[in-house]
Amino acid sequence: MRRIVFVILILAVSSVATYGQNSSATRKAIEANAKAFTAAFNKADIAAVALMYATDAKLLPPDNPIVEGRANIQNFWSGANTAGLKLVSLTPVDVTVAGNLAIETGKYVTTIPGAGGATMTNEGKYVVVWRREGRGWKIIRDIFNSDKSAQ
Amino acid sequence: MRRIVFVILILAVSSVATYGQNSSATRKAIEANAKAFTAAFNKADIAAVALMYATDAKLLPPDNPIVEGRANIQNFWSGANTAGLKLVSLTPVDVTVAGNLAIETGKYVTTIPGAGGATMTNEGKYVVVWRREGRGWKIIRDIFNSDKSAQ
Repeated sequence: MRRIVFVILILAVSSVATYGQNSSATRKAIEANAKAFTAAFNKADIAAVALMYATDAKLLPPDNPIVEGRANIQNFWSGANTAGLKLVSLTPVDVTVAGNLAIETGKYVTTIPGAGGATMTNEGKYVVVWRREGRGWKIIRDIFNSDKSAQ
Repeated sequence: MRRIVFVILILAVSSVATYGQNSSATRKAIEANAKAFTAAFNKADIAAVALMYATDAKLLPPDNPIVEGRANIQNFWSGANTAGLKLVSLTPVDVTVAGNLAIETGKYVTTIPGAGGATMTNEGKYVVVWRREGRGWKIIRDIFNSDKSAQ
């Protein structure tokens, strides 16, 4: 009987622990992922960028329809990278955790090559939804837009 | 002793139920909210639109910085409504539930008045994060963008 109580207690406690895990550890993991994403993108390691997405992820970029699945997302980012897009920064503003999901709201700065060797800077914001997979987190939704209209 | 086991069991089961509640009920509630949002917006009841957001919500519209808090969100939508924006449809594509949060991915169609009495149609997509409050759901994050660049 005591063993049964013990097992039920463990189940209850671990369930609550998973539910309420909006810990600084999760935030740190996601901040580290934002840096890893930026580094991989800027050295054109788009395979590594793609691996940060779940296989069933959806990317929702401006001026494009929804991009579904890791392979298509890799193609999309590969095209943007070839076009000269650089990530200056991804800055998480807040992270909200519920169960096996974490919702990150953040800001980005990007550059693209402009006319005559100039660099055009763009600033915007994003919402990324992460899902816990194994000991890490994978992106399942990624949507962003610019703070200013294109000029 | 039996009473203790019973209480612990109830705790364990209710905890798991909250965690795994990606039920059709939640999806239906969110689909109903999408229709209510559209109806309120199109009859210019922006106070009702604003009440669908949590007081600490963040709206992330294209070509604008982040709009924080229900009052500022009401101002933003009021301006868009006055400018002649109409919601043709908000169509939820999928809803993912974890704990007290639900992540909705969907598509929208809007119109704005064009030159010479014409109507310009825009299609896009969105991610909306809902948080359970009381017996209902409130928006805590709302981000969207167009499928095509402005012409």
